[in-house]
Amino acid sequence: MHPSYPTPTWVYESVIYQIFPDRFAIGKGKTVHDKAQLYTSRGGNIVEWNVLPKAKPHAAHVNDFYGGDLWGIVEKIPYLQDLGINVVYTTPIFLSPSNHKYDTVDYLTVDPQFGGNQAFKRYISDMKKNGFKLILDGVFNHLSKDHPWFKKALKGDKKHAAKFTFYEDGYRSWNNFSHMPEWNWEEIEVREYLLGVVEHYLRLGIDGWRLDVGFDLGYVNNALIASKVKSVSLEKYVVTETWNFPAGWEIVDGIMNYHFRETVLGYLKGERINIAQALQSAFDRTKNIYGCWNILDSHDTPRLATVLPDKELRKLAIVLQFTYPGVPMIYYGTEIGMEGGPDPENRAPMIWDEQRWDNELRDFYKKLISLRRKEIALKVGTFEVLNDEPLVFFRRAPHVLDSIVVAVNKGEHTKVSLSVPDGRLLAGTPFVDLFTGEEFWIVGGVLRIDIPKKGFRILRVTNKVKKGYDQYKRIY
Amino acid sequence: MHPSYPTPTWVYESVIYQIFPDRFAIGKGKTVHDKAQLYTSRGGNIVEWNVLPKAKPHAAHVNDFYGGDLWGIVEKIPYLQDLGINVVYTTPIFLSPSNHKYDTVDYLTVDPQFGGNQAFKRYISDMKKNGFKLILDGVFNHLSKDHPWFKKALKGDKKHAAKFTFYEDGYRSWNNFSHMPEWNWEEIEVREYLLGVVEHYLRLGIDGWRLDVGFDLGYVNNALIASKVKSVSLEKYVVTETWNFPAGWEIVDGIMNYHFRETVLGYLKGERINIAQALQSAFDRTKNIYGCWNILDSHDTPRLATVLPDKELRKLAIVLQFTYPGVPMIYYGTEIGMEGGPDPENRAPMIWDEQRWDNELRDFYKKLISLRRKEIALKVGTFEVLNDEPLVFFRRAPHVLDSIVVAVNKGEHTKVSLSVPDGRLLAGTPFVDLFTGEEFWIVGGVLRIDIPKKGFRILRVTNKVKKGYDQYKRIY
Repeated sequence: MHPSYPTPTWVYESVIYQIFPDRFAIGKGKTVHDKAQLYTSRGGNIVEWNVLPKAKPHAAHVNDFYGGDLWGIVEKIPYLQDLGINVVYTTPIFLSPSNHKYDTVDYLTVDPQFGGNQAFKRYISDMKKNGFKLILDGVFNHLSKDHPWFKKALKGDKKHAAKFTFYEDGYRSWNNFSHMPEWNWEEIEVREYLLGVVEHYLRLGIDGWRLDVGFDLGYVNNALIASKVKSVSLEKYVVTETWNFPAGWEIVDGIMNYHFRETVLGYLKGERINIAQALQSAFDRTKNIYGCWNILDSHDTPRLATVLPDKELRKLAIVLQFTYPGVPMIYYGTEIGMEGGPDPENRAPMIWDEQRWDNELRDFYKKLISLRRKEIALKVGTFEVLNDEPLVFFRRAPHVLDSIVVAVNKGEHTKVSLSVPDGRLLAGTPFVDLFTGEEFWIVGGVLRIDIPKKGFRILRVTNKVKKGYDQYKRIY
Repeated sequence: MHPSYPTPTWVYESVIYQIFPDRFAIGKGKTVHDKAQLYTSRGGNIVEWNVLPKAKPHAAHVNDFYGGDLWGIVEKIPYLQDLGINVVYTTPIFLSPSNHKYDTVDYLTVDPQFGGNQAFKRYISDMKKNGFKLILDGVFNHLSKDHPWFKKALKGDKKHAAKFTFYEDGYRSWNNFSHMPEWNWEEIEVREYLLGVVEHYLRLGIDGWRLDVGFDLGYVNNALIASKVKSVSLEKYVVTETWNFPAGWEIVDGIMNYHFRETVLGYLKGERINIAQALQSAFDRTKNIYGCWNILDSHDTPRLATVLPDKELRKLAIVLQFTYPGVPMIYYGTEIGMEGGPDPENRAPMIWDEQRWDNELRDFYKKLISLRRKEIALKVGTFEVLNDEPLVFFRRAPHVLDSIVVAVNKGEHTKVSLSVPDGRLLAGTPFVDLFTGEEFWIVGGVLRIDIPKKGFRILRVTNKVKKGYDQYKRIY
């Protein structure tokens, strides 16, 4: 009924890399010991980079710090460029007692543990100079119980009391976690303050926000934030965290598509799920699907390699991540095969010892990232299921010669004949496998292909001009 | 049926300024006399800046040169910034015998009369450094009869003959103008050469192409060019020249909307035309309307001030240009009130003597440019007619509080009551006139306003929070 903001065009060409700053890299040649004071003075424990994180009772592991910071990310620009990603999304970086920093004490101060505002300034300038877009994590539903306004309110300060919701025996906090009181967004002062934060960092040069627990913010506040983001520039981007079916959040540019993760991983793990129907339905119903994030893991889930240890099946999931409409998001380390169960095991420090990398997997990612950033069909094409099992779909491009067919086969080697519903595709046109170079031809609108056991194909329409004769000279 | 390319997001925030390079500014402190050799050596005549262009028999006026160049445009960056425009579209700049350069001799050489490739390099870097986007004029349907390939072909060189279409007694040329032979786009060598030109300048840093006589290129070649443009980046833009109803050209980002010009000027000149129906129909049917150019004049039409000498009526046309969906395009000099009939009178040199400017008109442009670049509703809002005569329409924004109502009244002072079809608009909400500050209130979904004689209103929805009470706290 109401118009939507156009998804920033750069988003269609993006591959996002998610970084949990405490665990990615320590800059300036330091170790966590060199920075110990920053943690221990605030009640934190320091942990060596090569020690895996472990759960502690009462979630005490949120006080375990490895020393990663924004200086470290900047120093890893060559790694990120070599991988081919062009957007970095960092989990929260503002002053906060925990290692995850989802409990903010000061929205206008980058935590000194991550290098402070000085490192942030360098992060912005160096990353942008190198062509990266930057997304920050906006934790605007709640804050830390140590935030000065909340502490004053708790002591009965009327000026601040209305910013929160107090009960006779406590206050409203996110999911009843008492260290994260919820903001009272209905109060104008709260709105104006938080919208000011949203604007402040966009003006400093970040390209977008990911809204933490966007479902808790609700539609009204998502819309308010989106209006603020777009008032700065339509080039700015806002994505909401939801764990639902993706449709219904058109007031923002997209959501973190955990529905994609659930359906794809469920399918590959052998659950009885109609993957073709699920993916088609989500595409058809979600107007902002191209702005949503195709997620296979994150700081909130076990890592992909742990969920799908079978590497062949895992590759099929990754193929879908890069060929389904939406923005692929890689969780740091998953590209080199890092493993890890639920939080905090999924937040292990990045492995920088190349001997421990799965280089074959990393090359596979690099190839898919490069295709995703090059092929128009993967950026803006439709999604049309051609076959349910094995799953085959068509990414129809504006120009007939840019279209792509993707096939994913979790079973035995098989052949399949596909009716490709596009009358522009002339008989005899080859579809070229972008991984193997093999060619398949379409005749009478039917494309016949084979797909290897636990294999896939990404087939691109290709025009073969023979001795100057171009059968597509009057077709587009 | 087939997907479209997303319109680059920056286009929604753009105001375009069209420059005819020979007539805008001479750089490096020179006069046309200092550059005389560049013209006379190639058979051209030089003309003093303050002499108005005059038609000559057999269109000999295409050989009259005033000396403008790209250096001159770069030196006028402060003027362009002060005006507030952010995109410059230049008519052709490649080597060509004429002053308009729509007959290309070498696509890879910027004409030395305009400063050559060296000036172009500076033009790109300085303009981009200052935040401007640049659009070049692509003349790909035809070329100059002096192009070396055509000359060879004409002499019987078989290697080049197939690039054109020869008859027993001549060859196919644009509109039968023999100095402009048409390319044979169906030949693969021609396609590859011209698509190479398209890509070359995009890689050098231009942001888009305007396709000359796009209707003559036809859909197939528009689509081929669009595919090439978008393969470089989805941020690149392609607009086609058509003089038709705007719908039906979704394969490119937009068209030059001469239908907008015809309907608006016809209406304001007193023709019996249903302007409300015409503008609504064009909006409803044209999927890429936001990428089209709202044009009131150009190098191909008489100037606005000549067509609408009544300044009050002219301002109404300009209000529509900046408030109708699409990108406003200002033809150089029209913002200071320059006059001029058909070609070549409409191509007079830019007036730089500020004493001769209509500063009141220029301020009016500046105000509208600033609103157009700021208001979300003017960038992405819907277009919904609320009243036919006087014409009133609604630009519905994604967030209720960003919407705008525009009223244009070419008759006597009048009052009008408007049903604004948006249930999110709460009773008592003020609509604020962005020019006068006056306020009007909506009640029961009805907005009552008055509009001055030959006047207009641009009314913005505004939230008035009273003593901290915000009636929109749960509405978006």
